[in-house]
Amino acid sequence: MQDGKEMYVIMVYDVKVERVNKVLKIARKYLTWIQNSVLEGEISDAKFERLRYELKEVIDEDEDSIVFYLLRTTRYSSREIMGVQKGGEVRIL
Amino acid sequence: MQDGKEMYVIMVYDVKVERVNKVLKIARKYLTWIQNSVLEGEISDAKFERLRYELKEVIDEDEDSIVFYLLRTTRYSSREIMGVQKGGEVRIL
Repeated sequence: MQDGKEMYVIMVYDVKVERVNKVLKIARKYLTWIQNSVLEGEISDAKFERLRYELKEVIDEDEDSIVFYLLRTTRYSSREIMGVQKGGEVRIL
Repeated sequence: MQDGKEMYVIMVYDVKVERVNKVLKIARKYLTWIQNSVLEGEISDAKFERLRYELKEVIDEDEDSIVFYLLRTTRYSSREIMGVQKGGEVRIL
């Protein structure tokens, strides 16, 4: 697998409160925290594999869930946020 | 505004528990529920306006937040889910 092959990932997690910190800590090594349970960023195939591997170690697959959207061709056109701006940097790409 | 102009939307909501049902009920009129607080689907510009308008009526913008990802060009390449499969139809597009 080439480490260099980049894709754009949007990650949404829903995990029990006792595992939120662990999941967020892992995810932030690879992606940028946007809002609540949403992170995103460019990532290589190899790093995405590692991200999934690390998450698998800490989540309970019977209780938690994580959704990844993989955008291979391009970034999404825009992001819009209603309500509280909780994320760090919030910009429309 | 043309109603016919379609885009693909991923919606992630984080709202107080007392408003979850209202938000989900509105969102499901326009989009397909995927998992937890995630919905997605094709939507016209006009319907997206209406969706945001209806949501604005029920959320508390000081406490709740909703993130929309708008994909104008194409659908995302794939969706991957780890853990619990809570959504209705779960398929990789």
